[in-house]
Amino acid sequence: MSVLALKEIQDSLGAAKVRPKGHVPVRNWTDSSGKEPVEPLALVLPTTVEEISTILAICHRHAQPVVTQGGLTGLAGGAHPSGGEIAISLERMSGIEEIDPSSATLTALAGTPLQVIQDAAASASFICPIDLGARGSCTIGGNVATNAGGNQVLRYGMTRKSVLGLEVVLADGTVVRNLNKMIKNNAGYDWTQLFIGSEGTLGIITRVTLALQPMLHDIRGALIAVDSTTDAISLLRSLQRALPAGLLVFEAMWREFYEIATTTLGIEPPLECGHDLYLLVEAPSAAGLENALEDCLATLLESGSVRDGVVAKSEADRRRFWALRESVYEYHRHFPPGVGFDISLPLDLMNDAIAALRSQLPRAFPGAVWVAFGHLADSNIHLDVIPREMTPETYSEIERVVYDLTGSFKGSISAEHGIGQLKRRYLDRSRAAPELALMKTLKSTLDPSNMLNRGRVI
Amino acid sequence: MSVLALKEIQDSLGAAKVRPKGHVPVRNWTDSSGKEPVEPLALVLPTTVEEISTILAICHRHAQPVVTQGGLTGLAGGAHPSGGEIAISLERMSGIEEIDPSSATLTALAGTPLQVIQDAAASASFICPIDLGARGSCTIGGNVATNAGGNQVLRYGMTRKSVLGLEVVLADGTVVRNLNKMIKNNAGYDWTQLFIGSEGTLGIITRVTLALQPMLHDIRGALIAVDSTTDAISLLRSLQRALPAGLLVFEAMWREFYEIATTTLGIEPPLECGHDLYLLVEAPSAAGLENALEDCLATLLESGSVRDGVVAKSEADRRRFWALRESVYEYHRHFPPGVGFDISLPLDLMNDAIAALRSQLPRAFPGAVWVAFGHLADSNIHLDVIPREMTPETYSEIERVVYDLTGSFKGSISAEHGIGQLKRRYLDRSRAAPELALMKTLKSTLDPSNMLNRGRVI
Repeated sequence: MSVLALKEIQDSLGAAKVRPKGHVPVRNWTDSSGKEPVEPLALVLPTTVEEISTILAICHRHAQPVVTQGGLTGLAGGAHPSGGEIAISLERMSGIEEIDPSSATLTALAGTPLQVIQDAAASASFICPIDLGARGSCTIGGNVATNAGGNQVLRYGMTRKSVLGLEVVLADGTVVRNLNKMIKNNAGYDWTQLFIGSEGTLGIITRVTLALQPMLHDIRGALIAVDSTTDAISLLRSLQRALPAGLLVFEAMWREFYEIATTTLGIEPPLECGHDLYLLVEAPSAAGLENALEDCLATLLESGSVRDGVVAKSEADRRRFWALRESVYEYHRHFPPGVGFDISLPLDLMNDAIAALRSQLPRAFPGAVWVAFGHLADSNIHLDVIPREMTPETYSEIERVVYDLTGSFKGSISAEHGIGQLKRRYLDRSRAAPELALMKTLKSTLDPSNMLNRGRVI
Repeated sequence: MSVLALKEIQDSLGAAKVRPKGHVPVRNWTDSSGKEPVEPLALVLPTTVEEISTILAICHRHAQPVVTQGGLTGLAGGAHPSGGEIAISLERMSGIEEIDPSSATLTALAGTPLQVIQDAAASASFICPIDLGARGSCTIGGNVATNAGGNQVLRYGMTRKSVLGLEVVLADGTVVRNLNKMIKNNAGYDWTQLFIGSEGTLGIITRVTLALQPMLHDIRGALIAVDSTTDAISLLRSLQRALPAGLLVFEAMWREFYEIATTTLGIEPPLECGHDLYLLVEAPSAAGLENALEDCLATLLESGSVRDGVVAKSEADRRRFWALRESVYEYHRHFPPGVGFDISLPLDLMNDAIAALRSQLPRAFPGAVWVAFGHLADSNIHLDVIPREMTPETYSEIERVVYDLTGSFKGSISAEHGIGQLKRRYLDRSRAAPELALMKTLKSTLDPSNMLNRGRVI
């Protein structure tokens, strides 16, 4: 059956667009999940939506599983192939089709890298509301398929909130398209929502229309130390009330993280060590608002709600603050591999959840190095747990301990990276049985032969 | 079958919660769509989610159609009963269950009036991001079921953007619940999206968790006259770039509307008549930003991009500007009934669409009075067309002309009110065949016996 499907695809698209097993570039054998590379049955490189429709119609007839690949930056194994799958890469479906300054929208093919979209938006004096570290490689289709989070969620929300229109190819090859540019559209069900965040399991996203945002100028930054997670959340709400232009960034680094950054990694500490939690805060400034953050901080220091704080006086200061937050990307030079997490916790329980981690992790994994940091205002924290000795059993045990704790605090096992293949077995920690049943109903309705990204998510 | 279903419901809930035909209060015979009142087969008044689950399980077994009723303020006939339906009113499922100031969330039963939610949010120093004229009567469940728009969409988006968690009862009585309070949660499909804006056709929403927003102070308002819709959109983008705290309101009144307000309705004109388009603009102010709107307006006047403008010097001024916008609610005193519309148009085509309306409406309906106004920044305009003589044929013909024109400009036949029963036949003006097919697939998957709000939307 696989051979027949592949033959039909080659006949339809031409041999130049199909790389059979033995000729698949190594790049397409894996995503960024760290899973063992696997050569798929074939790699197909369509250049049009019609070709994707043809491929899926053929695969649907033959019940041939496919995996969709974008920038291959996913961390959960969503685009990591298995040996029986045909990989469909959208890398040749790239390009911006329209920027409409009246509507403040941008429409692009799904394979367009995020950075290209950001640059195009900026050249029209807008901001692309989606931003993440992988911007140079990740594609907008992948961002939408995973409902990507990233650096600007506090202000603009997850990717879902910026999607106005989609074009999607369903499992049977049907093309469903509504490249809506309107903020308000209640004409029937908003079917696009189904595909956002479904990690390629319900259809292949081929075109995206995004809402752009007005450009911001003069970002002001500060580093602030507080006594507890509870105080950090109070600070967040105080700043939001005090600053009419809102916040851009509210990143947390708990003391374990700050200590490693300023000792093992040797970053000069802008504030002294020993506080419980350090916050990197940024807010847009403007004529008349230059000192709003500074004034607010002075008041809070006086009242004792913050322990220490420093406002960036220059772009160099701002970069120094970010160097702390980004120190985690240097861990591989200093530590053996650990287990990384991307969890959400309700803010009213986060203080207790952090305390529980602090008590449970050293007990369960004596001598392990662990750090917590992340997008606190979005309820999203990242964890890195580096045990003294890593074995497959330790890896699983660390996962189990953290996901069980996440579940017990009503958290989410994936804040932004998605479920993919890696977290599927833990999905029940964050989802009740009726939810899982409903997800399965949706999956079997839209992909009855389970051919799209099989074994991911659900 | 109906008799059996009703008997079973009475046995389960007790007679006090069931009003059979002949005893259904007249209030529940209709919503606000203007359709002829119809007494439903019965009215059921559950007080718990478990009771709603029981009712639906019984109706599902008997394939008994039901209609869900909230505040009965819908304008599209979504909650308007038919004679064979059992009406399920959520009026006794009212109350706020939690306000969490750490998470900035509020959880309420679906039958809670919007005003109650707004007041509770305000008492905790937050804003409820949803606001509309019917706030005193409409319920949060209805707001979510119709993805309500209203007065704050420019800043906070449609209702969908403020929903974090839902509890829903499916057609067969299954309760699916995730009262998520986290901004980021990518643990599997976000199934809640399906029910938002589905107008009760896929399930009954019983609980809602909303994201609240920081309170704003010192709203500044201005009335501005421009030469064209194109100039209005340029002004919108200029103001968004110039005001870091963003805009709250950007309401348009085209010249026909302004003339009627200041002549027939006798409102003293704050700006002289004769300009093409008048804009009511509001922005949050703050220390250091008091004059931002005024300064921006002065620059634009000088450059010629706006024709005239006046900034509100007092709350009385602000109310005067709003009296213009709200003059439409007085039309019933001066004009016979017309046909009201709630359409969206892409902003890049809106200038041409308004020109087309100006040319087509007087030709198709000589002597008709018509006005256009609405939430321009959200791409949403409201139309009122009052023909010289109204007949059922004229009514239909006016609908046909406006919806055909809306479709030809790639607009939406419903920006915010929904499709309900009234606009169902026109849905194809805004949706292509594959979209309609996908909507039907979702409907038949979640409600295979077509018992939920039958004959609405799809």
